[in-house]
Amino acid sequence: MTVTRADVEQAAERIAPFVRHTPVLRADAFDEWADASVYVKAEHLQRGGAFKYRGATNAVQSLSDTAASRGVAAHSSGNHAGALALAASVRGIPAYVVMPVDVAAPKLAAVERAGARITFCENSLEARRAKLAEVLDRTGAQEVHPFDDERVIAGAGTAALELLAEVSELDVIVTPVGGGGLCSGTSISAAPTPVVGAAPLSRATSMADGLRTGLSERTAAILRAHDVETVVVDEPQLVEAMRAVWEHLKQVIEPSAAVAFAAARGRGRVGVIASGGNVDLDALPF
Amino acid sequence: MTVTRADVEQAAERIAPFVRHTPVLRADAFDEWADASVYVKAEHLQRGGAFKYRGATNAVQSLSDTAASRGVAAHSSGNHAGALALAASVRGIPAYVVMPVDVAAPKLAAVERAGARITFCENSLEARRAKLAEVLDRTGAQEVHPFDDERVIAGAGTAALELLAEVSELDVIVTPVGGGGLCSGTSISAAPTPVVGAAPLSRATSMADGLRTGLSERTAAILRAHDVETVVVDEPQLVEAMRAVWEHLKQVIEPSAAVAFAAARGRGRVGVIASGGNVDLDALPF
Repeated sequence: MTVTRADVEQAAERIAPFVRHTPVLRADAFDEWADASVYVKAEHLQRGGAFKYRGATNAVQSLSDTAASRGVAAHSSGNHAGALALAASVRGIPAYVVMPVDVAAPKLAAVERAGARITFCENSLEARRAKLAEVLDRTGAQEVHPFDDERVIAGAGTAALELLAEVSELDVIVTPVGGGGLCSGTSISAAPTPVVGAAPLSRATSMADGLRTGLSERTAAILRAHDVETVVVDEPQLVEAMRAVWEHLKQVIEPSAAVAFAAARGRGRVGVIASGGNVDLDALPF
Repeated sequence: MTVTRADVEQAAERIAPFVRHTPVLRADAFDEWADASVYVKAEHLQRGGAFKYRGATNAVQSLSDTAASRGVAAHSSGNHAGALALAASVRGIPAYVVMPVDVAAPKLAAVERAGARITFCENSLEARRAKLAEVLDRTGAQEVHPFDDERVIAGAGTAALELLAEVSELDVIVTPVGGGGLCSGTSISAAPTPVVGAAPLSRATSMADGLRTGLSERTAAILRAHDVETVVVDEPQLVEAMRAVWEHLKQVIEPSAAVAFAAARGRGRVGVIASGGNVDLDALPF
């Protein structure tokens, strides 16, 4: 079983009342920098400041009333936590979020603002998984994984669906790739338009902290099935692209989004999914 | 003789093939900060990064072929210079720009990129005026004043026209006010919707360097005729608003634009014209 274009179309219909239909942005000066015609699907302007709200909403709104009443849960130190908390609050159900004690303050604030119940744990994948298992056990909530979940992948794919409805004949669409939820969802929506996944060179240490995870079997299989090319971006390229987006497109994007802009250079008529804009203004690389 | 709504409508038609129809942006988190429902007309995403391109284009495209062939000219150290240079290059006519020797590097770069002929002078209003008079004399070019020009005012008013076509029943529209071109143009388009002009508290020393000029007789008369209220914003309010726009709306706006956001707080269903986004990323106030 895998995710099909029909799943993405159903997701689009399901989430339409809840998500922001984000604009597609352009700037001549940015095109000059990129040596390409770049169409930016502005998912950093999505509710919660990231595309993640699409997948979280699709998962939350797919639940039966009975399942929904027990709530949803995830471990996350990033945008997924805030998105899931927000999606749950919109449906009026509980969200349980497991976060490491050293989570970035803005991410924590977003989750708190949405009214999620937060459990802290040590910052290791094992500790996070163990704590989440406890929470699921105690509450009967349903886990919504940040990317290894068909509802989340289908929801993520709706951004490219909107982009392609607005802009025709793109040569390629570029997305960041970490766990691969956005990239695999995009490849399903975009086919036969080719998709490129952009990843930081040194995952563990890159500024692109949203892309520290690797693919799951599910997302890897989808990327393979759609011949998605992966491109690697080093830190200077990332910082240069981030600055060019701020300066020429006037958009505040986070480092994890910048990798896709770096990989879009010289690619003709190219769509870029700007994945998120949740950045700490006190810790800029320029 | 003054500027009428019909002039703004004609300007809108004249410039439509050249200007970007900028999006209207919203963000829940920003509304929360502002305690208001804020609709942002994103003129910082206009070509050249500021609303100024509307007025400059209206002036340039209004010229007869004979007048146009002699070119256009202005003295400016800010966004008007870049806008006029760009508008002239689109029509394929010369632009002569007088700039002070200590002009900010990004502003100079924008004017150079557009291919304008630059004359430098000392940084005083007298020196700028004298040098411009020389240039006008020598070239036969037509002066396009940054705000004290009916074509420029009518062009500036087209942004509010687009905003109101997209968003109905605004309680008020807020714009920055310096020379008053944008504010007076907006008041003409918006009537009977009230307009508020936001100015920095200390004009000469404020970070809002685009608002250092005062009104002309013409713009003052238009503001009076439309009962435009002027609101004064101090520097801490300006910096707080600028940061809130970057953080919650994810938009890179310049200090001169931020004053309008500061003045929009608590004003109900409010439109804000984001006037420009040309900011030096190496000199942020946060």
